[in-house]
Amino acid sequence: MKDYIKYHEWQIIEEGFDPENNRISESIFSIGNGKMGQRANFEEKYSGDSLRGSYVAGIYYPDKTRVGWWKNGYPEYFAKIINSTNWIGINISINGQELDLAETKVHSFKRILDMQHGLLTRSFVAELKNGNQVEVKSERFVSIDNTAIGALRYSIKAINFSGEISISPYLDGDVFNEDSNYDEKFWIEVSKEVDGNEGYLTLETLKTEFQVCSAMSFQVQKNGEKEIAKPVNSVREKYVEAKQLLNVKSGDEVVIEKFSATISSFDYPKNKLVETAKESINRATTNGFDSLFENHKNLWLKKWETSDIQIEGDVAAQQGIRYNIFQLNQTYSGEDERLNIGPKGFTGEKYGGVTYWDTEAYCLPFYLSTAPAEISKKLLLYRHNHLSKAIENAQNLGFNNGAALYPMVTINGEECHNEWEITFEEIHRNGAIAYAIYNYINYTSDKEYLAPYGFEVLLGISRFWSQRVNWSEDKQKYVMLGVTGPNEYENNVNNNFHTNYIAVWTLKYTLEVIDYLKKEFPYLFEELISKWKFNELKETGRWKNIIEKMYFPFDSKNNVFLQQDGFTDKELIPVSELSDEDQPINKKWSWDRILRSPYIKQADTLQSLFWFENDFSEQELKKHFDFYEPLTVHESSLSPCVHSILAAKIGYEEKSYDMYLRTARLDLDDYNNDTEDGLHITSMGGTWMSIVMGFGGMRVNESRLLFNPFLPGKWKSYKFKIDFGGAHLEVKKEQNNFIIVNHSDITVPVSVWNVEVQIQGNSKLEFKK
Amino acid sequence: MKDYIKYHEWQIIEEGFDPENNRISESIFSIGNGKMGQRANFEEKYSGDSLRGSYVAGIYYPDKTRVGWWKNGYPEYFAKIINSTNWIGINISINGQELDLAETKVHSFKRILDMQHGLLTRSFVAELKNGNQVEVKSERFVSIDNTAIGALRYSIKAINFSGEISISPYLDGDVFNEDSNYDEKFWIEVSKEVDGNEGYLTLETLKTEFQVCSAMSFQVQKNGEKEIAKPVNSVREKYVEAKQLLNVKSGDEVVIEKFSATISSFDYPKNKLVETAKESINRATTNGFDSLFENHKNLWLKKWETSDIQIEGDVAAQQGIRYNIFQLNQTYSGEDERLNIGPKGFTGEKYGGVTYWDTEAYCLPFYLSTAPAEISKKLLLYRHNHLSKAIENAQNLGFNNGAALYPMVTINGEECHNEWEITFEEIHRNGAIAYAIYNYINYTSDKEYLAPYGFEVLLGISRFWSQRVNWSEDKQKYVMLGVTGPNEYENNVNNNFHTNYIAVWTLKYTLEVIDYLKKEFPYLFEELISKWKFNELKETGRWKNIIEKMYFPFDSKNNVFLQQDGFTDKELIPVSELSDEDQPINKKWSWDRILRSPYIKQADTLQSLFWFENDFSEQELKKHFDFYEPLTVHESSLSPCVHSILAAKIGYEEKSYDMYLRTARLDLDDYNNDTEDGLHITSMGGTWMSIVMGFGGMRVNESRLLFNPFLPGKWKSYKFKIDFGGAHLEVKKEQNNFIIVNHSDITVPVSVWNVEVQIQGNSKLEFKK
Repeated sequence: MKDYIKYHEWQIIEEGFDPENNRISESIFSIGNGKMGQRANFEEKYSGDSLRGSYVAGIYYPDKTRVGWWKNGYPEYFAKIINSTNWIGINISINGQELDLAETKVHSFKRILDMQHGLLTRSFVAELKNGNQVEVKSERFVSIDNTAIGALRYSIKAINFSGEISISPYLDGDVFNEDSNYDEKFWIEVSKEVDGNEGYLTLETLKTEFQVCSAMSFQVQKNGEKEIAKPVNSVREKYVEAKQLLNVKSGDEVVIEKFSATISSFDYPKNKLVETAKESINRATTNGFDSLFENHKNLWLKKWETSDIQIEGDVAAQQGIRYNIFQLNQTYSGEDERLNIGPKGFTGEKYGGVTYWDTEAYCLPFYLSTAPAEISKKLLLYRHNHLSKAIENAQNLGFNNGAALYPMVTINGEECHNEWEITFEEIHRNGAIAYAIYNYINYTSDKEYLAPYGFEVLLGISRFWSQRVNWSEDKQKYVMLGVTGPNEYENNVNNNFHTNYIAVWTLKYTLEVIDYLKKEFPYLFEELISKWKFNELKETGRWKNIIEKMYFPFDSKNNVFLQQDGFTDKELIPVSELSDEDQPINKKWSWDRILRSPYIKQADTLQSLFWFENDFSEQELKKHFDFYEPLTVHESSLSPCVHSILAAKIGYEEKSYDMYLRTARLDLDDYNNDTEDGLHITSMGGTWMSIVMGFGGMRVNESRLLFNPFLPGKWKSYKFKIDFGGAHLEVKKEQNNFIIVNHSDITVPVSVWNVEVQIQGNSKLEFKK
Repeated sequence: MKDYIKYHEWQIIEEGFDPENNRISESIFSIGNGKMGQRANFEEKYSGDSLRGSYVAGIYYPDKTRVGWWKNGYPEYFAKIINSTNWIGINISINGQELDLAETKVHSFKRILDMQHGLLTRSFVAELKNGNQVEVKSERFVSIDNTAIGALRYSIKAINFSGEISISPYLDGDVFNEDSNYDEKFWIEVSKEVDGNEGYLTLETLKTEFQVCSAMSFQVQKNGEKEIAKPVNSVREKYVEAKQLLNVKSGDEVVIEKFSATISSFDYPKNKLVETAKESINRATTNGFDSLFENHKNLWLKKWETSDIQIEGDVAAQQGIRYNIFQLNQTYSGEDERLNIGPKGFTGEKYGGVTYWDTEAYCLPFYLSTAPAEISKKLLLYRHNHLSKAIENAQNLGFNNGAALYPMVTINGEECHNEWEITFEEIHRNGAIAYAIYNYINYTSDKEYLAPYGFEVLLGISRFWSQRVNWSEDKQKYVMLGVTGPNEYENNVNNNFHTNYIAVWTLKYTLEVIDYLKKEFPYLFEELISKWKFNELKETGRWKNIIEKMYFPFDSKNNVFLQQDGFTDKELIPVSELSDEDQPINKKWSWDRILRSPYIKQADTLQSLFWFENDFSEQELKKHFDFYEPLTVHESSLSPCVHSILAAKIGYEEKSYDMYLRTARLDLDDYNNDTEDGLHITSMGGTWMSIVMGFGGMRVNESRLLFNPFLPGKWKSYKFKIDFGGAHLEVKKEQNNFIIVNHSDITVPVSVWNVEVQIQGNSKLEFKK
């Protein structure tokens, strides 16, 4: 846990330079535009501890699996979105001495991430060993208007000397991943060129053979006058540079504007990369920094119009929630159905930037409510596009007849993870992917998604569940053996409640979808039957049998469903009785002790109760919450949001707020001491859910928005924006009021505290309770 | 499965050279003497596929753990007995052309391992590319008389040419392990020298800093005349060589005798290694090949006197069992309590040559019955010496108060294995170590072992069990959660019958031992109480409570104890109904499919029934055998022997013989296609048990030998040797007779087919049934 970020409503502020925090700040101040991401590395050389990271969406390397003991079915590789060409770099020398904050005295260091406008700035005064002092200011953004473009402005003011400043902007592709399994470098050079103020560098990934062309251009001014001397160009392998020398006297200010264009074979033919990059960089240079930034800034302001949450009376909370929304919007923009949301986005190497079930379970609701439906639809199409790979994956594990098991971790539909208890057993992910289809349609009413896309995925998943259960002669029930639930502190258990529940739910929902398709799209459904060799009578017959006879472990003493068979054989000592020395258990205890303990890493049984709350009475929800919450250590960042929402649902308002606090500033305060690895992007969706679905009590039911809001005791008010059925709503909870403003022409049916009402277009309704 | 080894009662014979089988033969024809081992690599260069292996007992490298996903508690390294200086090497050139069987035509290739005398010979005719033909014969052994010494005689006969033969004996320490986790070499050079016909090379292991000095000397003769020309010496890093050139004409025979001495810091101070090696090699050279061999051979003949098994009427079985006995005796000689028995002995890299529970469970009975008690005692002392490390290991996992968990895999008492489901959970190994103490004392009557050694180990293990169980409120019983039984096709299960059973057994036995010590060694026991801070009343009180209230999963439908909780939730389809395509399942199925299946890799519940057969009625044994055997795939080489013995016990003679056949020639026939990795040394102990305890029905009960023999249908007779209470017995089963010959002066009480009788010294008794 750290505490060095200053509170501000719209800005993330760091004052003073502490090398100890550098990797953390590099993560926190990351910028991105959905197509690329850049850690907050310095432009100038930095020889201190740093994790350099420039990431390009979709450009990955299949790093050969590292494993101690191979198990049949393990994947050959782990895909990683890899560190790519450093486009921000500018080497600076002052009278022959290199500017390197690890080697100089640093004063007045300040870093600001302006979330409202999407701009990272940094300023400091450096005193070099030769006594020369410079004042440096940098501004940087990656454009959300033109996602190929990165731009920065870097100014150096000579404070107390005259002499020569050397400025060498460069492109460096000779980079590596710290997490490379076998210390390989992943890039080879294809071509390069540098001429005057322009240069480009094309690299290709090994094995996957992606090409990325990075182009740069720059302009230097001294005291506002453009510098026209031709720079000295130089190259070496995977590197181009242009060096400009300037004579300065005390008080002079030198400013460099550097632009980059990143064009990859993910979007363009390989033989067009250089050409496209050159065109791109030329346009950017012509427009200039200010004009590029203006377009970028305006788009950010528009994003905030549909996604902002305002909190009055708690600036730390305000900063926290805006930071989460900002980073979610920086990570995924929904323009490309081949892209998805990595747990760390583009802010570090951990988890390889690839896709987990986090997307469906924790991120989809945010995009559903703050962006047009087609954005969320892209996330669904991503999985639909991977259906054949999911079927292949299931085949590799011994399933057949089109059963689909989506990977635990993937970038292209193929499984990447290699822990047997997760890869093969954490199969509830399949349910999350099915649930996302339901969630999307419930929110958007886009039922037509089912015919060409949704049904096929549901069929594959239902077939998987149908084969994955087996009949227990002993129990005279269907059972599901050898699974790992969302709580990864239990492995290879039998009859995990959540997994069994979502399996049955998937089967039921698929049956509903079949009824719908038969009614609405009878001819198309016939085609689907034939395409998928779907033996409706036989297959749905088995499904119905499973739905009827599925086993759910139940404890009649506590009147709760059990997380898995045998859970009550454990010593159920609440977390509150653990000593501080024991926590976090994932740091303090051996793995087997964790496994034998009753402690829950993240919502598991409660995940089902959250998703399927209408299947349970409020009393049942309470019983389960009261049973599981005291045993939950929340050592996953994805856990507290679910407990927060459930607590709100059952009226535990204080608990709900406590849970919210555990993730709201997770990265800003480096709560888990791991922000240096990158940001917890997907958990940010959970924090958003805590406010909107927890405090706001927002649900959607049959095209109606429901709210059951409350105001956390410490806040004066909160307000959030919702896109729903084409309408833009602003929803505000104050001490005694609940206000909905409809900023569109569309009438929206809502229910507030169980009172149903229509909100006319461009009107405002105020509720009291 | 291969079928190229020729049948012979005393010899292992390969005829014809097939490079495809080379690695397999290198394993099969391995020689060793308990202090070192040597794969059957060629003396001359071989550029074809080969696994070079020269191993020195106790000399290991802690290879850094390779793991995909770290779990708290994993060890930092995996200890490996490493490939060390190649002392057999002789480069041969014929008229400038190198002799290399990968590059020449090979005729009349023959390799023979003479098990009776411990001699490996090889002969062939090679036709080089230049047309020169040579006839080569080599003989090689590692002395069991002087375990530092290896010796070889290598003769080359010029068949069809005149010219020059170059002979370059060398020592090569620039060797590597194929299984190095990070492609490191493990040795650095300390010193070397070569002068005339002698050379030495001292190397040191990285990290562990063991030093090994290898010395060589050699003599060359031509047509029986000693060659006196001084050889040309050369060195490079970690390598010394002496080259001798000889002019030959057609029909000439050149013979080189090469000796090596291997002296390590495991046995000598580092500053004495070179001196000791030189003395050793000088003595060996003075004695000469024939004299060294004579002593070696005579000791082998003596070993056979106490350990041979003779089978009449089945030469394949005869060869198989002798091969197993031979390799066991080559691997462990019981001279050093710091040494143990690796699953592959000194015959390959797999399993690192380090210690598993195999030793206690499968090897101890062989050494108990075929060697003096002090040999087996060394195996027990090995674990006693590691007690403090076992306590530390348990502490690392969160146990306290002197609880001891012996490692799954170790060389020095520290855990080396890194699969959580095994490292942390396959804890029945602790029970095997306790059981070995009982087994040793039961066999040898050496109860005095308990006071200084046995009790301490039992106390540590009992304390572990006492903490490892927990009270289930639900069951009102003690349970043991999250374990892996001997059947590694189930992981992280609850209440594994075998583990629970052996835990309770350990507690009971420790209580018995305490009673004995209090009676026989009251003062010593007081000291032990104080040394171990043993709160007898409180601790044994809890033990008794656990003994009384331990939970054992039981299936009342089938009237059998279940391997673990929930076992009958599985679909119990017998192995016989699996298609051939599905087997072996460890090759054909994904890991999760294996885990969900009911199939048993190796005896698990039946392991308890084998060890504790007297706790069960014959009907109970049958019920369990009938339930579990049809579900057992025996994909561990350690499985069939237990089934074989149990089958014999309950009168399933044919089944017993079938099971015996599955391991008797495991390596000779490369049954599992993995002999190239090394031999299944520890399973060889199981094969021996199948005959003696299975067919012979031998048991020991209160200082009495019991026999319930039968003769497998295809055999004419079998005969085995037994050391018991100082007496040497020869036990023979013929068609209608059972004969015991007592070759000692000691009277031995026996029971044959439940009839009790005393066998007087130097007498013979014949039984009929």
